[in-house]
Amino acid sequence: MTPACVLCQGDGGRLVWRNDRCRVILADEPDYPGFVRVIWQAHMAEFSDLTAQDRQDLMALVNRVEQVVRAVMQPTKINLAALGNMVPHLHWHVIPRYADDAHFPGAIWAAPQRAVAADALAHRQALASVLPLALQQALSAELH
Amino acid sequence: MTPACVLCQGDGGRLVWRNDRCRVILADEPDYPGFVRVIWQAHMAEFSDLTAQDRQDLMALVNRVEQVVRAVMQPTKINLAALGNMVPHLHWHVIPRYADDAHFPGAIWAAPQRAVAADALAHRQALASVLPLALQQALSAELH
Repeated sequence: MTPACVLCQGDGGRLVWRNDRCRVILADEPDYPGFVRVIWQAHMAEFSDLTAQDRQDLMALVNRVEQVVRAVMQPTKINLAALGNMVPHLHWHVIPRYADDAHFPGAIWAAPQRAVAADALAHRQALASVLPLALQQALSAELH
Repeated sequence: MTPACVLCQGDGGRLVWRNDRCRVILADEPDYPGFVRVIWQAHMAEFSDLTAQDRQDLMALVNRVEQVVRAVMQPTKINLAALGNMVPHLHWHVIPRYADDAHFPGAIWAAPQRAVAADALAHRQALASVLPLALQQALSAELH
C-alpha cells in the first residue's frame, strides 16, 4: 500500500469483482457508461514489472472483461489502455466506444468532438446497468 | 488482407522485426522518439477476437518490447494502448513517456501542454537510434 496513491487508498470506482491480485470496477465517467477498469491490487507501475504468470492472468481477465463489455454494451470498438501517467498504479481501461460518442474516432483523452445525444446515452446507461451482474457471473465462473 | 486498411497495405512505419503473426515497427512520431507499435499481421479488430494462445503470444511480445523500450529509452512511464478507432486492425502502441514531453501527464492524444526542449528531444533521438538493433537482438533471441 502506497499512502499517496488513490488506487491503494480506495477501490477507484464501483467494485464489481475482486480476487487477491486484481479487481474490476465500473469507472465514473458520465459520457461513457460501461467503461470498466481492471486494477492490479499491488502498487506496481508497469505491466513489465509483473511476473510472466501474473501478466498472463491479468490479460486473461482483461480479455474476459472485454468479451462481457462487447456482449452487453454492443460497442463499435473496444479501446484498451494502460497509461498511469497520473496514477502510476497498474490499471487497464476497457472502454466501449461508439461512432457517435463524445470523442470518436479520437481517443477519449482528446478534445471532445460532439455532445452525446441524450437518447443514445440513455440507451447505453440501460445496457450498463446489466454489466455488474454479467461481469460477476462471467468472472466467477471462469477465474479464481 | 483488407484493401482499404493501411496496416494491411503497408508496414505502418519502419519495420524492425516480424514473424508470421506479428510485426514490430518504429512509429513516425516526431515528438516521441522510441515510440514502437506491435501490429498483428492479420486484419482483426479486437484483442478478444484472437485465440487464447495468440493473445498470450502477442502480449509476451508487447511485454518484451516494453522491456527493451524501458532499458534503452529510460522513460518516466510506459503507456500501452490498443485503440483502433481510426484503423480497426489490431495494433499495440508502446510509448515511452517523460515528465517534460509534449503531453505529460496527459495522454499523447490530448492537447499538447508544452513544446519539447530541443536538447531533451535530441537525447531521446540518440537513444532511439539504438532501438532497432536492441529490439532485433531481444526478439530474435527469445521469440520465434
